[in-house]
Amino acid sequence: MTRQLFIGDKEYFRGIGRIPYEGQESDNPMAFKCYEAKRMVGHKTMEQHLRFAVCYWHTFCGGGADPFGVDTQVFPWDAPADPVDAARARMDAAFEFFTKLGVPYYCFHDRDMAPEGNTVAESEALLSTMVELARERQEATGMKLLWGTANLFGHPRYMNGAATNPDFAVVTHAAAQVKAALDATVALGGENYVFWGGREGYSSLLNTETQRELDHLARFLETARDYARGIGFTGTFLVEPKPMEPSKHQYDFDAQTVIGFLRHYGLAGDFKVNVEANHATLAGHSFSHELQMCTDAGLLGSIDANRGDPQNGWDTDQFPSDLYDAVHAMLVVLADGGLTQGGLNFDAKVRRESVDLEDIFIAHIGGMDTFARALQVATRLLEGSAMPVHKAGRYRSFDSGDGAAFERGELDLLALRNLAVAGGEPNHTSGKQEWYENLVNQYL
Amino acid sequence: MTRQLFIGDKEYFRGIGRIPYEGQESDNPMAFKCYEAKRMVGHKTMEQHLRFAVCYWHTFCGGGADPFGVDTQVFPWDAPADPVDAARARMDAAFEFFTKLGVPYYCFHDRDMAPEGNTVAESEALLSTMVELARERQEATGMKLLWGTANLFGHPRYMNGAATNPDFAVVTHAAAQVKAALDATVALGGENYVFWGGREGYSSLLNTETQRELDHLARFLETARDYARGIGFTGTFLVEPKPMEPSKHQYDFDAQTVIGFLRHYGLAGDFKVNVEANHATLAGHSFSHELQMCTDAGLLGSIDANRGDPQNGWDTDQFPSDLYDAVHAMLVVLADGGLTQGGLNFDAKVRRESVDLEDIFIAHIGGMDTFARALQVATRLLEGSAMPVHKAGRYRSFDSGDGAAFERGELDLLALRNLAVAGGEPNHTSGKQEWYENLVNQYL
Amino acid sequence: MTRQLFIGDKEYFRGIGRIPYEGQESDNPMAFKCYEAKRMVGHKTMEQHLRFAVCYWHTFCGGGADPFGVDTQVFPWDAPADPVDAARARMDAAFEFFTKLGVPYYCFHDRDMAPEGNTVAESEALLSTMVELARERQEATGMKLLWGTANLFGHPRYMNGAATNPDFAVVTHAAAQVKAALDATVALGGENYVFWGGREGYSSLLNTETQRELDHLARFLETARDYARGIGFTGTFLVEPKPMEPSKHQYDFDAQTVIGFLRHYGLAGDFKVNVEANHATLAGHSFSHELQMCTDAGLLGSIDANRGDPQNGWDTDQFPSDLYDAVHAMLVVLADGGLTQGGLNFDAKVRRESVDLEDIFIAHIGGMDTFARALQVATRLLEGSAMPVHKAGRYRSFDSGDGAAFERGELDLLALRNLAVAGGEPNHTSGKQEWYENLVNQYL
Amino acid sequence: MTRQLFIGDKEYFRGIGRIPYEGQESDNPMAFKCYEAKRMVGHKTMEQHLRFAVCYWHTFCGGGADPFGVDTQVFPWDAPADPVDAARARMDAAFEFFTKLGVPYYCFHDRDMAPEGNTVAESEALLSTMVELARERQEATGMKLLWGTANLFGHPRYMNGAATNPDFAVVTHAAAQVKAALDATVALGGENYVFWGGREGYSSLLNTETQRELDHLARFLETARDYARGIGFTGTFLVEPKPMEPSKHQYDFDAQTVIGFLRHYGLAGDFKVNVEANHATLAGHSFSHELQMCTDAGLLGSIDANRGDPQNGWDTDQFPSDLYDAVHAMLVVLADGGLTQGGLNFDAKVRRESVDLEDIFIAHIGGMDTFARALQVATRLLEGSAMPVHKAGRYRSFDSGDGAAFERGELDLLALRNLAVAGGEPNHTSGKQEWYENLVNQYL
Repeated sequence: MTRQLFIGDKEYFRGIGRIPYEGQESDNPMAFKCYEAKRMVGHKTMEQHLRFAVCYWHTFCGGGADPFGVDTQVFPWDAPADPVDAARARMDAAFEFFTKLGVPYYCFHDRDMAPEGNTVAESEALLSTMVELARERQEATGMKLLWGTANLFGHPRYMNGAATNPDFAVVTHAAAQVKAALDATVALGGENYVFWGGREGYSSLLNTETQRELDHLARFLETARDYARGIGFTGTFLVEPKPMEPSKHQYDFDAQTVIGFLRHYGLAGDFKVNVEANHATLAGHSFSHELQMCTDAGLLGSIDANRGDPQNGWDTDQFPSDLYDAVHAMLVVLADGGLTQGGLNFDAKVRRESVDLEDIFIAHIGGMDTFARALQVATRLLEGSAMPVHKAGRYRSFDSGDGAAFERGELDLLALRNLAVAGGEPNHTSGKQEWYENLVNQYL
Repeated sequence: MTRQLFIGDKEYFRGIGRIPYEGQESDNPMAFKCYEAKRMVGHKTMEQHLRFAVCYWHTFCGGGADPFGVDTQVFPWDAPADPVDAARARMDAAFEFFTKLGVPYYCFHDRDMAPEGNTVAESEALLSTMVELARERQEATGMKLLWGTANLFGHPRYMNGAATNPDFAVVTHAAAQVKAALDATVALGGENYVFWGGREGYSSLLNTETQRELDHLARFLETARDYARGIGFTGTFLVEPKPMEPSKHQYDFDAQTVIGFLRHYGLAGDFKVNVEANHATLAGHSFSHELQMCTDAGLLGSIDANRGDPQNGWDTDQFPSDLYDAVHAMLVVLADGGLTQGGLNFDAKVRRESVDLEDIFIAHIGGMDTFARALQVATRLLEGSAMPVHKAGRYRSFDSGDGAAFERGELDLLALRNLAVAGGEPNHTSGKQEWYENLVNQYL
Repeated sequence: MTRQLFIGDKEYFRGIGRIPYEGQESDNPMAFKCYEAKRMVGHKTMEQHLRFAVCYWHTFCGGGADPFGVDTQVFPWDAPADPVDAARARMDAAFEFFTKLGVPYYCFHDRDMAPEGNTVAESEALLSTMVELARERQEATGMKLLWGTANLFGHPRYMNGAATNPDFAVVTHAAAQVKAALDATVALGGENYVFWGGREGYSSLLNTETQRELDHLARFLETARDYARGIGFTGTFLVEPKPMEPSKHQYDFDAQTVIGFLRHYGLAGDFKVNVEANHATLAGHSFSHELQMCTDAGLLGSIDANRGDPQNGWDTDQFPSDLYDAVHAMLVVLADGGLTQGGLNFDAKVRRESVDLEDIFIAHIGGMDTFARALQVATRLLEGSAMPVHKAGRYRSFDSGDGAAFERGELDLLALRNLAVAGGEPNHTSGKQEWYENLVNQYL
Repeated sequence: MTRQLFIGDKEYFRGIGRIPYEGQESDNPMAFKCYEAKRMVGHKTMEQHLRFAVCYWHTFCGGGADPFGVDTQVFPWDAPADPVDAARARMDAAFEFFTKLGVPYYCFHDRDMAPEGNTVAESEALLSTMVELARERQEATGMKLLWGTANLFGHPRYMNGAATNPDFAVVTHAAAQVKAALDATVALGGENYVFWGGREGYSSLLNTETQRELDHLARFLETARDYARGIGFTGTFLVEPKPMEPSKHQYDFDAQTVIGFLRHYGLAGDFKVNVEANHATLAGHSFSHELQMCTDAGLLGSIDANRGDPQNGWDTDQFPSDLYDAVHAMLVVLADGGLTQGGLNFDAKVRRESVDLEDIFIAHIGGMDTFARALQVATRLLEGSAMPVHKAGRYRSFDSGDGAAFERGELDLLALRNLAVAGGEPNHTSGKQEWYENLVNQYL
């Protein structure tokens, strides 16, 4: 798994080499304090545990515009006037960044990698060209694709939805894009393929037939799956929940909504969930809650590791830096056996005011250190602390006897009632929440 | 469906008779401005459409205490020192209120109607006695029971959950209470039975095995259903979503979560959803959204008609007074064919400062007028305005040809892509949201 | 106050004439249902009461882009390739729209009306040219300027703030823009001048000296006021609160924060508050609350009439259509004696999916009808209902005797305590909230 | 400052002695991992820095009831049937707890310490008796009173407000309670006196004259201050902001609102702000933001150290355990010169499910360790890291030259504009937020 450093015709990040590990005491902002790719934690290396991915869109395409102001970032790879030349420059910068940072994976949307053409065929050709280049870069470096996806929300034609658009003509364009993005993902050996339904939802119930739109969405996913399986895609399809924004309401509101949808339409065999931290909190959940709901269902696919701002009600997509969020996440992930085909994709962007080119390194270093430390803390909590025993102990009355019979469905309501009569008032047992929370702090 | 006025040994609401309809111009706060029980709207009377129910707990048991202060209400029916005498007085007051207000239904928890005893058997006997009295009162008046339920959240034994408690002994007590509440519901001819999982959830993920708890919940519901069917209950079981409070997270977060749960555990044949307006907004949804999700699934059971405060993050359970909420709700309900076995239960309480006995009449009158007016507005919008045609028209491309073929699953991804190529860029069609919103205002 | 219809070299809104009043029964979406400019309500016409203004930015510059997608609107006035030609076309479209809609006022930012140049001087010249044209258009039509302002948030230089930027050089550029915008406002006879501090706030406290930044803001406002007064501006300066977005935290969080700031820095003589409905709800307040806080302080300047989405945590800037919001607002405004120098500016945009050119008419018509109806309802509630008497009656114990002595500061704590001893337990008086709410519905 | 262990006639916390410091590696949940009272951090001991206080209400009076269930805690000091005997028992338990835990301070409401009597005089006598006992206990142990206060929200008479009640008779009762509570605070050497306006706000604007109520509040505070100064109170008066709950809107919404109020009514000389973490987040602010606003104004009085739940919209009053919150708080406090007359009061309660008597020790230990660790981290960041220099450096352009002249008010708008012309486009300087955030993690 040694990856080669890539520097194209032009070096975009001059003065920055491979990011080294220097440990907790280092004053160097351009060094890892905690993340050591090859350090073993249990049976796997940190790299194998965490499977970090850099996202193409925020990191190389995101100029910092927001609803109140234009781009602030001046990316040297945007210099070429011709869009295709700029796409090539961007790809060179991306692989230079990936390999200097030292992550094994990346993720992309079709339109991140290649510009849209004037026709479907032109768009396909543009993407195809860039995919071929990406394939070469992957071979040269050892970089791998965690997942691909299609941007079905940026173009005006998708303003009323893509697969759920009331106009069938728009659905066909969404299909064309997904076909090309699936072709690209297969060509690049992508291990997963993501559907984020940015505009699959509604602005107003007054003009919307929600059930018909949801049926269309399911049909669309089915169709995409069948095509992908037909061209040899063996990876996992992922649906990414988000409750709102840009739509007033998005159909894939949260993990439970998506899980219910996948099961109802018979898609749960091929599709899993891609959980994003910031989307979790926008939905009124903690990040770890969303992960837990997915692992309970056997449907945790992959993770978009970022964070929101607790005081702001939109997707701030900040880099993960809160150790609690990361520890609670890793507790769920490790209890589930760890990430297998999924990874930790940094669907995060530097603040609009962080305009130094080094800031994107600093931000990724911070995110990787956060999860590396969380991996260590969670491992110690699960393997070295009293937590797992206490937690399991709370449920011991179901491990045998009448409790176990209840679990097996062998006791009817009257039998249960009779046990209550016989047993009298139960003990009132402390939940000990503060004890658990103190323990997390002690291990942090 | 003429109901008899009931006044017990003591008249609790002196000076208040049957609430009359006096129309929009009346200055009398103790008269309906819009609700006329027997007025026809379409093929049904207002009473048949709206199926109003008064809730026993807030209206007769809720003294106004909140986390920062004790009860403010001085209810004359609380005067008797003996709890059973007080329960009888409360029931007299309740039936007097029901029949003076002129609603056809009521709803109750076991502990609203009868106090808890020292043992399971004692509690059963107390409930049984009061149920017999309620049965007599129903017969005498023509009042009916919309639904019964058990309070599985008030007693300390349920602090860590009822059906989802980590201690099996607590589960048995929950079962005992549900058995008795089902017996009561059947005895009273209840048309539905509700499960609201007040403490079925968690305070901290650190000490909780969520999947095991959810399995227990499903098993518990199954067991309750089997018992109820065995004693002749033919009504609908209802699960009521709420996202949080009192728990940090409640398992029945919202409609989609509950629908997914019911389907996953094979309960959707017997169980439907009881949607509460205030719970909808606490979950980050509009009231009409939650109703729509249920009607889409064929699982709208009944409605708890109240409202929250848009600036407050807890269950304020205010009486419904917002005509928009009510109109949007009735648009969904009428499009679904109207309420059948369910009703509009006022799970609402007067403000803690509303301490005049007449205030509970005023509040219910306001709520009934709100929905009566909404029924009229929604009917006119659906039957007399351009709205339904415009809405259906948005989806016309799926009604025939390739769009219909897509709906039937006859087009694969490549076929869809080829249609995109052939069709070129689709028209960008206005969603006309402001037009729809203006129309609602015009009809209000 | 008769205004002339304006149509420039090209008619942008073909097939649409002056919007007529057709009354409640009209099926014509392009007609007012309630707003009649010349109808008397009390001593003033609707037009004099409501003082509607159209905003230049959303209506003529806002293409519909959001963080997830590009512009959807295709405005014919954007056709000219040269930015100055486009600015002229935009102004022609604007005056055509103003006069067809029939509003007396408009509002603008410097950069809405004229593009930014390469230097300060160039920007000043461009603005100056367009202002001269606007002056001519105003004279020709009778249109007036409610307020002008400078866009101090769109350009990258303002990413860390304008007046509160840590870099003094940026403050000077903000000053240059404000100087030119004040010159423009005076040239156009603007009745007010607005400061909205889009990026006056912080992204992180870790890198911010808040007090120093606030001192800079006060100094900046002082400096601007002195300049404006020097060039003959006699209008009101307005500060517009917003709690967050684009900043994580904005200094002008809400009305009380701004009022405290203006008083602390001695600015309350010249500055008042411009209350926006959507900003109110983002701050956790109702719209009417923010208005009330301002009228209490004698500092209500003007109003940005729009609304947010109750389920979305960002500035959706929708057109006002909720009659409750509007009635509650008008109750506060009328009790304060009505709008004098301020107005109702539609700081609102059509939904991104509302791409028909007529949609901007439909949206404004809806907003105007909403406030016209609210004006009538609020007037009747204040002049014809029992509400004002009941409300005043709650405070009658302070109108004379000991209560009045307390208000005058004549009773010390011991005297008050002795009155408590003498008076015994007070009556517990109902707040009658449900009665008030029913009354509003009855008058709606 | 050595305090004596107190054990009354009965030992309430058997088997628990003085809580020892055992360091980070200890497995003992009943030991401090970080807090060592006498350890020096800079020039002060941890105890002197942090000035911890235990609150009487949650810890000894809070039985765990919530809106959906009754008390779960079984406190042995509640055993006596007579309320005064129970009050004595509770006080013994309290001083035993204080001295075993090892905190220097406590805080109380009048009604926590003594029950309410049937008349004002009786209530005064009951409080007076208990205060005398508390005085003895303080002398015997060395414990001190951080602040006293009066409960003006629990009794039904206060349902419509206390000082802001529309009925003057209620205001007199509030005055009587405050007089007695001030007497008690002075008798006990209290260093501060707190006003938390639990019901000083409104449920509905429709029935409320906000300005008149706010004038009453100011008059009331003035009157209380004058009385207290007259009886020799030299401490600080504190107003505690909270945005809502129990009221729909509370007048003391947040720090800026309170600061503006205190300044407007001329109270800022005697009154400061008591910042509570959970109230901060309910108001849409971070804890550190509220602290920063107060230190900027020179008005930070004291701190209620707790936390809310990020997914729950009510006052959960959990023990502080988030190191980020605590570090950010201590950064503000230390930069302000540290706490002087104020302290860190644990206005926090164990979870309703934490029913072991030891849980209240565990919770306090966790809170104290959290702030002890945060004190160390914040000290190192301020004294040993690059953070302060980088932050100050951002503002260097104002330290001299034109920037300094601007700060002094020596540059008019034209002069500023001319500097913009001369200076040309400013550099766009990175805010480096991710760098700051990584640094905090490194030092944690």
